[in-house]
Amino acid sequence: MKKLYFDHNATTPVLPRVFKAMRPYLTTEFGNPGCGHEWGLAARRAVDKARLQVAGLLGCDPLNIIFTSGATESNNMTLFGTLPYFSRAHMVTSVIEHPAVLKPVGVLEKRGIGVSYVNVGESGLVDPDSVKDLCVPETRLISLMLANNETGVVQFVAEVAAFARTRGILVHTDAAQAVGKIPVNVEALGVDYLTVAGHKLYAPKGVGALYVRDGAPLTPLVHGGGQERGLRSGTENVPYIVGLGEACALAAEDLEAEEERQRKLGETLLAGLKSLGVDFRVHGKDAPKLPNTLSVGFGGLFAGDILSGLVGCDVAVSGGAACQAGKTSISHVLESMRVPREYAHGTIRFSWGRLTTGEDVTELLKRLGMVLSDLRERG
Amino acid sequence: MKKLYFDHNATTPVLPRVFKAMRPYLTTEFGNPGCGHEWGLAARRAVDKARLQVAGLLGCDPLNIIFTSGATESNNMTLFGTLPYFSRAHMVTSVIEHPAVLKPVGVLEKRGIGVSYVNVGESGLVDPDSVKDLCVPETRLISLMLANNETGVVQFVAEVAAFARTRGILVHTDAAQAVGKIPVNVEALGVDYLTVAGHKLYAPKGVGALYVRDGAPLTPLVHGGGQERGLRSGTENVPYIVGLGEACALAAEDLEAEEERQRKLGETLLAGLKSLGVDFRVHGKDAPKLPNTLSVGFGGLFAGDILSGLVGCDVAVSGGAACQAGKTSISHVLESMRVPREYAHGTIRFSWGRLTTGEDVTELLKRLGMVLSDLRERG
Repeated sequence: MKKLYFDHNATTPVLPRVFKAMRPYLTTEFGNPGCGHEWGLAARRAVDKARLQVAGLLGCDPLNIIFTSGATESNNMTLFGTLPYFSRAHMVTSVIEHPAVLKPVGVLEKRGIGVSYVNVGESGLVDPDSVKDLCVPETRLISLMLANNETGVVQFVAEVAAFARTRGILVHTDAAQAVGKIPVNVEALGVDYLTVAGHKLYAPKGVGALYVRDGAPLTPLVHGGGQERGLRSGTENVPYIVGLGEACALAAEDLEAEEERQRKLGETLLAGLKSLGVDFRVHGKDAPKLPNTLSVGFGGLFAGDILSGLVGCDVAVSGGAACQAGKTSISHVLESMRVPREYAHGTIRFSWGRLTTGEDVTELLKRLGMVLSDLRERG
Repeated sequence: MKKLYFDHNATTPVLPRVFKAMRPYLTTEFGNPGCGHEWGLAARRAVDKARLQVAGLLGCDPLNIIFTSGATESNNMTLFGTLPYFSRAHMVTSVIEHPAVLKPVGVLEKRGIGVSYVNVGESGLVDPDSVKDLCVPETRLISLMLANNETGVVQFVAEVAAFARTRGILVHTDAAQAVGKIPVNVEALGVDYLTVAGHKLYAPKGVGALYVRDGAPLTPLVHGGGQERGLRSGTENVPYIVGLGEACALAAEDLEAEEERQRKLGETLLAGLKSLGVDFRVHGKDAPKLPNTLSVGFGGLFAGDILSGLVGCDVAVSGGAACQAGKTSISHVLESMRVPREYAHGTIRFSWGRLTTGEDVTELLKRLGMVLSDLRERG
C-alpha cells in the first residue's frame, strides 16, 4: 500500500535537489566559514550564495537575512530582541499564533511587558481594525503570523503593517507556513522582521532565517563569535544554510504554478469529501487560505479515532492542532474561532505538498471513506 | 599536491560513517518527532537512540542530554539559564574561555551580575585555588572550559567542581574541544552542566548538546513547542542529532587508542619542528594537553605570513586564535599567558584528527620548512 503523507504543515521532506546541493558540504567541503584558508573560503562562498537565494525569494537585500536554527529561534530572537527589560513597553499579538510566539510572549508578560491579544472571528481572520484598537502609545511591537499552521488562513499582515508604520510600531510576522507556498515579499508586506522555517519548505529541520529590516533594532539572543553580523553567534550550519538557499531558489522558480496546482488538489479533496456523504465543516472557509491546507471538522467524531484509522492504512495527517502524539484537547486556534465542540473534537488537518499528486488525493479519499464508514458502523 | 588539513579545532569533517547514519533522515525518513504517525515515530526513535549514544560517551542518563544547535547555544543557555535577572548573583569564569562564554558573560555583567575572572599562568592552566579565592557567598556558578581551543591545555575542572560542591556552587564546563578527544565523564568531572559541540567531533556544524544534571536549575533560552523536556523548543534537527549520536558512539569505541595515536602524531610533529632549526616555543608546554593540538610561536615571524605561505601550498592551519580571516592581533589566550610578543605574533595552531596520518605530518613538516625558509630569506 502506498504511503500517503498529508502532513506537510508538520514538516516537509527534503527534496532531492535540495539534498544534492547540501551533500558536498556534509562530505568534502567541510570548512568553517570563519577560516581564511581554502576550506573556509569555500564554505563562506556557499553561505553567501544561500543568503542571496533566500533574499531573492523574499525580495530583500542579502544583508537583511540572518540564518538561525529554525523558526522557533527566529521568533524568540525577535520578541526578546526588540522588547528590552526594564521598560514599560507594550506589544500586540494574536490568540492564534504558534506556541513559538505565544510562549516567549508569555515570558515577556511575566517580565512586565504589557501584552494585548487580538481575537479572531469564526473566519479565523484577525481584523486589522481590532489590532489598531489595541495599540497604545507604549506599543512597540506587533507580532502577527502570516499564515496559520492549523487552518491555513492567511492574515492581513500588510494592512496591519501599513498602520503600524504611521505609528512607528515595529511589525514581526511569523511566515513559517507561508514562505514557499504563496508569494511573500517583505516590501509588499512592509514588515520589519519575518520568520522563515527551513523544514516547512523542503529544507531540513534545524535551519531557519530571520529577515531584519535595515535599522530595525535587535539585541542578540545568543552571543559569541559574532557570526551573522553579530546577531546570531555560533559556527554557521553550512550544509543546512545551503539547503535552505536551494529550497528558496526552487520555490521562486515555479511559485505561482505550484500554488495553482496545489490549490486544485485542495479543490479535488474538498469535492471528494462532499461526495463521501459525511457531516463536516471547513475551518476558515471564507478566508484567504494557503493552497496546501484543509482543516476539516467531522461532526460527532473524535480526531483520535480518525487518526488511528488513517495510521492503520498508511496515511499521515494531523489532528486539529500542533502535531502532538495523543493530544485530544481542542486547539487554541479552533477554540478562538468558536468552532462548535462536536466539530472541533473531530478536526483533521490535511496538508499536502510538492510531491503530492492527484492520484494521492483520490487514494486518500478512498482510505478516509473506509475509515469514516468503519467509525460510523462502530459508533 | 595533497591537501593537508591541520585545523580540526576550527571544525572537523563529517566522517563517512556519520554521514551514512544521517542520510536516511535527510531523504526518506523525514518525519517530525512530534507526530504520532509512522513518519513521526520513526524520527522519535532515531532521536531517542542518539540521546543514548551521547549519554553513553559522557557516562550519564539520556534524560540529562538536551540537544541544541551547537556549543554556542549550549553555553548561552547555561549562563543565561542559571543566572536570573534581578539577583545579586556572582559567578566565576576564566580569562581564556571561548567567546561563546566570554560574550554572554559580558552581557550578564552589564545586567548587574558580579563576575570574577580567574587568570592563567604561563602554563595556560587555571589554578583551582585561584578559583576558590574568587568565590564569595553570592557565587552561584563557575564556568570553566575543559580544554582550550587555542592551546589544547586541559583544565583541572574536577578539582574545581569538587570544591564547588562543598559550597553549593553550580559548575559548567565548555567541553566543546574535549569531547571525543579525551575521556569526558560527567560523574568523574562532577559538573552540573557540560557543553558538547557536534562539529568538533566529526558530526556537522549546527548541532550540539548540553548535559544537565538532575535537579540543576535551568530556565530555557528559547520557548515554544516544548521539545527537549521544555528546555529547548523547536522541531528537533533529527538528521544532525542522529549524526551527533553516531559520532559519539564512534568516539566511544576507540577513544583511548585514537587518543594515543594522535598523541604520537603530535610527538612526531614536535620532533620535526625541532629538526627544522627554527626558533619557536610551544604554548602550554608543561600543562596536560589534548592529543591533537600543538600551538607554536615562531620567534620574530608573523602568523599572517606563515598562513599565507601554507595556504599557497594547500595546508590549512589557524593563527593563534579563533579562526578569523585577516586577524592579526594577539589572542586573549596568549595575552593572558604572557607570551612574549615576538612569539605571540608568530603563533600557529596545528590541530589534527582521525583521518590524519603520519605521512600527512611528514608532508606538513616539509611544506612548513619551505615556507619558513622562504620567510627567513625574504626577512
